[in-house]
Amino acid sequence: MKLEKFPKDSFVISTEMVLPNDTNPLHNLMGGRLLHLMDVVAAISAQKHSNRVVVTASVDNVSFKYSPKLGDTVTLEAKVTRAFNSSMEVFIRVWSENIPNGTKVETNTAFFTFVAVDQTGRPIIVPKIVPETDSEKKLYEGALQRREVRLMMAGRM
Amino acid sequence: MKLEKFPKDSFVISTEMVLPNDTNPLHNLMGGRLLHLMDVVAAISAQKHSNRVVVTASVDNVSFKYSPKLGDTVTLEAKVTRAFNSSMEVFIRVWSENIPNGTKVETNTAFFTFVAVDQTGRPIIVPKIVPETDSEKKLYEGALQRREVRLMMAGRM
Amino acid sequence: MKLEKFPKDSFVISTEMVLPNDTNPLHNLMGGRLLHLMDVVAAISAQKHSNRVVVTASVDNVSFKYSPKLGDTVTLEAKVTRAFNSSMEVFIRVWSENIPNGTKVETNTAFFTFVAVDQTGRPIIVPKIVPETDSEKKLYEGALQRREVRLMMAGRM
Amino acid sequence: MKLEKFPKDSFVISTEMVLPNDTNPLHNLMGGRLLHLMDVVAAISAQKHSNRVVVTASVDNVSFKYSPKLGDTVTLEAKVTRAFNSSMEVFIRVWSENIPNGTKVETNTAFFTFVAVDQTGRPIIVPKIVPETDSEKKLYEGALQRREVRLMMAGRM
Amino acid sequence: MKLEKFPKDSFVISTEMVLPNDTNPLHNLMGGRLLHLMDVVAAISAQKHSNRVVVTASVDNVSFKYSPKLGDTVTLEAKVTRAFNSSMEVFIRVWSENIPNGTKVETNTAFFTFVAVDQTGRPIIVPKIVPETDSEKKLYEGALQRREVRLMMAGRM
Amino acid sequence: MKLEKFPKDSFVISTEMVLPNDTNPLHNLMGGRLLHLMDVVAAISAQKHSNRVVVTASVDNVSFKYSPKLGDTVTLEAKVTRAFNSSMEVFIRVWSENIPNGTKVETNTAFFTFVAVDQTGRPIIVPKIVPETDSEKKLYEGALQRREVRLMMAGRM
Ligand SMILES: CC(C)(COP(=O)(O)OP(=O)(O)OC[C@H]1O[C@@H](n2cnc3c(N)ncnc32)[C@H](O)[C@@H]1OP(=O)(O)O)[C@@H](O)C(=O)NCCC(=O)NCCS
Ligand SMILES: CC(C)(COP(=O)(O)OP(=O)(O)OC[C@H]1O[C@@H](n2cnc3c(N)ncnc32)[C@H](O)[C@@H]1OP(=O)(O)O)[C@@H](O)C(=O)NCCC(=O)NCCS
Ligand SMILES: CC(C)(COP(=O)(O)OP(=O)(O)OC[C@H]1O[C@@H](n2cnc3c(N)ncnc32)[C@H](O)[C@@H]1OP(=O)(O)O)[C@@H](O)C(=O)NCCC(=O)NCCS
Ligand SMILES: CC(C)(COP(=O)(O)OP(=O)(O)OC[C@H]1O[C@@H](n2cnc3c(N)ncnc32)[C@H](O)[C@@H]1OP(=O)(O)O)[C@@H](O)C(=O)NCCC(=O)NCCS
Repeated sequence: MKLEKFPKDSFVISTEMVLPNDTNPLHNLMGGRLLHLMDVVAAISAQKHSNRVVVTASVDNVSFKYSPKLGDTVTLEAKVTRAFNSSMEVFIRVWSENIPNGTKVETNTAFFTFVAVDQTGRPIIVPKIVPETDSEKKLYEGALQRREVRLMMAGRM
Repeated sequence: MKLEKFPKDSFVISTEMVLPNDTNPLHNLMGGRLLHLMDVVAAISAQKHSNRVVVTASVDNVSFKYSPKLGDTVTLEAKVTRAFNSSMEVFIRVWSENIPNGTKVETNTAFFTFVAVDQTGRPIIVPKIVPETDSEKKLYEGALQRREVRLMMAGRM
Repeated sequence: MKLEKFPKDSFVISTEMVLPNDTNPLHNLMGGRLLHLMDVVAAISAQKHSNRVVVTASVDNVSFKYSPKLGDTVTLEAKVTRAFNSSMEVFIRVWSENIPNGTKVETNTAFFTFVAVDQTGRPIIVPKIVPETDSEKKLYEGALQRREVRLMMAGRM
Repeated sequence: MKLEKFPKDSFVISTEMVLPNDTNPLHNLMGGRLLHLMDVVAAISAQKHSNRVVVTASVDNVSFKYSPKLGDTVTLEAKVTRAFNSSMEVFIRVWSENIPNGTKVETNTAFFTFVAVDQTGRPIIVPKIVPETDSEKKLYEGALQRREVRLMMAGRM
Repeated sequence: MKLEKFPKDSFVISTEMVLPNDTNPLHNLMGGRLLHLMDVVAAISAQKHSNRVVVTASVDNVSFKYSPKLGDTVTLEAKVTRAFNSSMEVFIRVWSENIPNGTKVETNTAFFTFVAVDQTGRPIIVPKIVPETDSEKKLYEGALQRREVRLMMAGRM
Repeated sequence: MKLEKFPKDSFVISTEMVLPNDTNPLHNLMGGRLLHLMDVVAAISAQKHSNRVVVTASVDNVSFKYSPKLGDTVTLEAKVTRAFNSSMEVFIRVWSENIPNGTKVETNTAFFTFVAVDQTGRPIIVPKIVPETDSEKKLYEGALQRREVRLMMAGRM
């Protein structure tokens, strides 16, 4: 196992099309379906960092400011911002495009936390993160405080 | 439209079976799939309170302390804790059971916020909540502060 | 294993939203999709009574008098009415609501029979039912004759 | 519209593979999933007879004597046995095969009733059936009594 | 294992309904979804010929000249045209019908190649094909050249 | 509408996890499911080039040299290699990774052809491609001959 990795090593992109079953009666993507897509992409990112099976430990506050429509494409980008012992914070950005109309908006951003586990489901240590770019450094710095908030909210601190 | 409603008027239960496609390679329910189920049940609850089409505005921090397994049943209970102008906070509790083994655990709890919208997707006013039980009153009191936190985090306050 | 249980011990509710893929070209819920939902809820109910894996042995005549529409919610309630040796009769009631319109109708009712099986798929004994309410007693009494009809129709009597 | 049609005009076959999500924890096809497949094939058969959109009016007693397994193929055959005014009785036979093992069993048979409807969902007249083979004649004769039973059970006679 | 089999021994038909999630924003069946359906039916055909688990080795050029619509039925017919050592060429024809409108068109045809494998995934010998009808003989003759083309295109000849 | 665009303007990546329902009884990704994923990503690429709704016109010979397993991630990359009048050739590369094992293989490559259509489904003109890199130039040059082959095979030349 490498002891340190860069955020770019866990960078994942996925592009999806909004299909009928993903939508509500106003033909907008349902929030829960987007959370599901975000979780899969973020899990692949955490897997890439840790080379382990991972489980979702928590999702920080997510807010939805824009409604992707039926037929729109949704692009999700994820990378690990910081790793602790067995847990990793993953930052996800989501864009939505109506390609024929040429419109593109940032749908939302979120932080998901994953824990690397062994075959019996027990937490296992993961490599550290070495941030490179300015934005990666900022996300890395903020991760400590976000960790405290979420552990407190989970009643674990 | 009624001007006031009770939390019990928006009470919704749903019971689901964890199927193969819902699970990761360790045969545990994936976090994103559970968020999807929670969103659907909470949306029905907000619909019941408002008698409107609703959209997910935000999800507060959710933490996953237990992994339901393939074949387990997952029970989700939702009710509206407080309504503001067009937005409603919904509280969701999730239990997971392995019925043949006779085990039952609380998987997690969460607060989702929904906004009632008209046919063009514009926010529209909803009835107020009158809490009845002690726990409903406590949830009702806490809702104001949780609203401030989430609007601040969404950059709206 | 308990020797006797009440119908309420196996009571299960589930609330679902009618999604696009569940519907026919007139945007109504397809009968087969509703039967699928009924089977899952009834199976959970039979599992709760028997604390066993269960398999569907038969479905009595089901008639569909009302068509839930896309976006409607469908609520399914199930409980065991009577248990024999390894088999259990489950009664299911289905309501359909268009919440924004404030309409609610009983979609249909049905009796499904499940058999509790061990890990090799062989039938295994289950607890008896002790009916409590008047309607439970009526369902319990009628179960004997319904069993005769369905075993006769299955060529087993 | 033709005034009369043969059962063979509405003959439909479908062959499906049992996939993981169709199965219970013992890796057997779930009864509700099979009912769903039967409804789709039978609906296509009723559509072929009537050249109309059709809705499921009822399902007669179905009994499950055999459990198709994950990876098995399931073959469903449907044809209209008799047409009344707007309603048609469809007979469905289901076989299950484990092709690598060379085993093939009749899983079950069933009668579904469909009603042809116009674009507003109102019942509309369909062609009569002229049975040709001996087994078609037998099914045709029996249809009248089965209709009485199911209308009585639906509280319509 | 039989040493020789007829094309009719591996004949498979399947009839499917185009559901909302199978369609693009113009409500036409998506090409990739049809390829998926073709692969499943062709795989069952190759399984019937070989009585083995099979894997898709290649798909020859497929062209789509017609767009099935939401609610249309799609009928797929497959049979093995020729078997080599462990590989089998399967010919698939697809029709699309709008039954209420009484229209029926050939959507497309294709050749898929499957390889029979043992439980460890290693190729294993399959029976030869003895073509019977004229069209079967023609498909049988052509198979040799198509095999050369596809092995060349896969960089294997 | 721009008259010319670069291949990079239509570059799309998508990363997916192989879920249980995507697999055969040996737990390998089924060929048809991969073709489905390829079609969606390639369609988004063709949409990006043309800013139009697109339909799949054809798929060139695809060969599968490696079977992704349950739980593996599959990465698909697509870009337009050349545009003619209304049609565009899209090149797709697929990688499969077992991240915990640290293995990564090229699963396959393929050429899909899409046609841009207006709201009535009629072909409509698209921008030309200006290849930039060496590999883009090579793909661009080869596209003319591949077009001839596929139109000939579709009986259109
Ligand atoms: C939620 C939404 C309707 C708000 O619209 P808006 O134009 O910002 O409306 P307003 O500013 O008037 O706010 C309306 C209400 O939403 C609430 N709201 C807005 N953002 C919120 C957030 N992130 N969290 C909680 N509540 C929020 C406001 O507080 C306000 O509540 P109130 O009426 O009870 O006081 C809009 O942002 C939207 O459509 N978002 C996308 C929803 C969606 O499709 N979700 C699924 C995405 S996959
Ligand atoms: C149901 C099943 C377990 C019965 O097994 P069996 O070997 O026939 O066992 P038995 O004859 O001992 O019967 C066991 C019980 O099933 C009941 N049973 C059998 N067929 C039945 C039917 N068609 N309807 C209702 N009950 C039935 C018997 O009455 C008996 O009940 P009891 O123990 O309460 O007296 C077996 O037929 C089976 O596995 N069927 C397939 C179930 C399935 O997979 N369903 C989904 C298919 S998609
Ligand atoms: C089936 C339905 C169209 C009948 O409508 P209706 O207004 O009761 O019409 P009618 O009383 O004129 O009956 C029409 C036909 O349906 C038949 N029918 C009605 N209920 C039936 C039942 N339970 N079983 C069998 N046939 C039935 C009648 O016998 C009559 O047949 P006929 O015309 O051949 O003589 C209507 O009840 C309906 O839309 N039901 C819901 C269908 C549906 O959506 N199914 C899926 C639900 S998830
Ligand atoms: C593809 C389609 C739009 C072509 O329509 P058409 O009326 O034949 O139009 P044209 O003859 O003018 O051809 C239009 C373009 O399609 C191309 N085309 C047609 N068939 C093709 C094939 N099999 N392979 C590649 N290109 C093809 C033509 O070369 C032409 O390209 P150009 O405009 O760049 O010169 C039409 O055949 C169609 O709708 N097919 C079904 C598409 C679909 O629904 N796919 C999914 C089915 S499940």
